[in-house]
Amino acid sequence: MIQQYPSALLENAVNEFAKLPGIGRKTALRLVLYILRQDPSFAENLGEAIIQLRKEVKYCSVCHNISDAETCSLCSDPSRDASTVCVVENVREVMAVENTRQFRGMYHVLGGIISPMDGIGPSDLQIESLIQRVASGQIKEIILALSATMEGDTTNAYIFRHLAPYNIKISVIARGVSIGDELEYADEITLGRSIINRTLYNES
Amino acid sequence: MIQQYPSALLENAVNEFAKLPGIGRKTALRLVLYILRQDPSFAENLGEAIIQLRKEVKYCSVCHNISDAETCSLCSDPSRDASTVCVVENVREVMAVENTRQFRGMYHVLGGIISPMDGIGPSDLQIESLIQRVASGQIKEIILALSATMEGDTTNAYIFRHLAPYNIKISVIARGVSIGDELEYADEITLGRSIINRTLYNES
Repeated sequence: MIQQYPSALLENAVNEFAKLPGIGRKTALRLVLYILRQDPSFAENLGEAIIQLRKEVKYCSVCHNISDAETCSLCSDPSRDASTVCVVENVREVMAVENTRQFRGMYHVLGGIISPMDGIGPSDLQIESLIQRVASGQIKEIILALSATMEGDTTNAYIFRHLAPYNIKISVIARGVSIGDELEYADEITLGRSIINRTLYNES
Repeated sequence: MIQQYPSALLENAVNEFAKLPGIGRKTALRLVLYILRQDPSFAENLGEAIIQLRKEVKYCSVCHNISDAETCSLCSDPSRDASTVCVVENVREVMAVENTRQFRGMYHVLGGIISPMDGIGPSDLQIESLIQRVASGQIKEIILALSATMEGDTTNAYIFRHLAPYNIKISVIARGVSIGDELEYADEITLGRSIINRTLYNES
């Protein structure tokens, strides 16, 4: 389809928006026209927020989570249990685990998972720094909380192999039938796992 | 749901993105994290494109389309027929009509349609300037190309009433069964209209 934009400024803004994942040219144009209908401060605030974030973003020197300071608010919170570290892929999973209010330990953000298909190997992730954290001696348990996918399993196995020499507990989050799910719709592998890893009724 | 962002900069960027139509907080976070993974120039380009567009956008003094100059490229094109003006809602419809390559006249961009529900009345739109364009005498035909909705019909009627005193042709784009559509699925009103406004077979 031919698309003749009546203005180079408009075309440029549409092009930049359309580079974002899940945003096609039609959506980009709709967003840009929406911005044009708003107060000038709207565009100013959005544009500045994007530029400032990318320019001033920091990553916590301990857990590598996105942070405003040298050490993030979680790592510098003395009420949290520094002996238990939950290993996650990204900041989104930190927020997801925090929202459960079931975990009071620390985190370690890998920044991704091992995915040969996408060219992401162990050296692209914060695995070496995790090993160093464990080697420093304070950690008693590592909880691996990665996606239940092949990439997640590969990353779990890699981390497990490299942490095996250290005398710590390494656990993986439970996999089973989701709460609220009807059993007949659960896939065989999940259902099989949930039978093998069954828990005592009075403990659940 | 509680959502504790680990960084105020991150939260601010997510908030600004989530103000855009059709973008919720989860999508906003996904977009922001995508931007963080890109080269710093990516955020710089996107942010600047948004700010610059809003700051420097111009509207054509003749047709009110978005433009880089005082007069847009369509209005200043001497090869186009200035005696026929196609009235559209927005820049998107200008682009849509241009893409058909079936029209070589000029445009008039209303900037919306009359919609009492949204508090948009005739005075919020470029209708007065359309009447002035017609009054200046050069225009022979006005083609109303608005949406086939109640708001579009109301706007058509309003414009028709105000242009009636001038001795010009006023037409509305054809409404009928879309090309490629199966007749049994066409709605009754569209099908009824398409029978009333039938065209001679050798003219179609």
